[in-house]
Amino acid sequence: MRIAAGSIGQYNDRHSDGFSHDAMANSPDNTKWLDSVKWDSAGLVPAIAQDWQTGRVLMVAWMNRDALAETARCREAVYWSRSRKKLWHKGEESGHVQAVHEIRLDCDADVIVLQVEQRGGIACHTGRESCFYRVLQDGEWETVDPVLKDPQQIYGA
Amino acid sequence: MRIAAGSIGQYNDRHSDGFSHDAMANSPDNTKWLDSVKWDSAGLVPAIAQDWQTGRVLMVAWMNRDALAETARCREAVYWSRSRKKLWHKGEESGHVQAVHEIRLDCDADVIVLQVEQRGGIACHTGRESCFYRVLQDGEWETVDPVLKDPQQIYGA
Repeated sequence: MRIAAGSIGQYNDRHSDGFSHDAMANSPDNTKWLDSVKWDSAGLVPAIAQDWQTGRVLMVAWMNRDALAETARCREAVYWSRSRKKLWHKGEESGHVQAVHEIRLDCDADVIVLQVEQRGGIACHTGRESCFYRVLQDGEWETVDPVLKDPQQIYGA
Repeated sequence: MRIAAGSIGQYNDRHSDGFSHDAMANSPDNTKWLDSVKWDSAGLVPAIAQDWQTGRVLMVAWMNRDALAETARCREAVYWSRSRKKLWHKGEESGHVQAVHEIRLDCDADVIVLQVEQRGGIACHTGRESCFYRVLQDGEWETVDPVLKDPQQIYGA
């Protein structure tokens, strides 16, 4: 086991860039780390994007092997769009790119957590900071977070 | 839209218990909130457990309708074990119960985030605080978090 110097100690110390800049490259002879991921029957895993400073969970999307490889390579979040069936470089339309500071894998190797810096402060297509803007209260899902920017302004009419 | 007083303002203000204590009850005549969730073809959604104070993502598991209803009712995390094919009251063996302070739903209504208070400070079956103890560095998944308690001590030999 090698210890990542930037990650020892308090988990809150997320401010150093954990990347070794040529280390994340997905060269043809270095894809073993991708083989370690337990892709589901559709070849996907869920990826959680978490604000690297506040810890807020911003969104959850899906990644296939190419999406994760590309995320590691370019250090911006790239997901697999299940609806459009293609790679989705987050922010390609909205400008709301997610700079990726860290990539973690869980014990079962089937979920990814990204520590991201959210450009524009908006992760959700509704124009909110986070997709998780509804809280269960009094037996109802109550919307508790404001729209920061009109989606029409983000995506055009 | 109703605004939840405890949730306005800074997201970091997670210290108030967002529950209305009889509100989370899953009475037979109040299951509309469960109908709002977009269960997948297996009747499941992923649920992220996040430490309510540090924001650390502790684990991701799956919930079916009964698991989410029971989580809301007893205010402790109850998941659906896909391997054992039964409800899994987190901590039933380990004692590492998760007290649930808040339940959120995302814009697509297909992912849950729980704000939890992790009893024993250990969420992972490996004896670590979080299941996400591996970081991608130099093209390898490096284990960066310590085992806090031997799993044999947690689960017995």
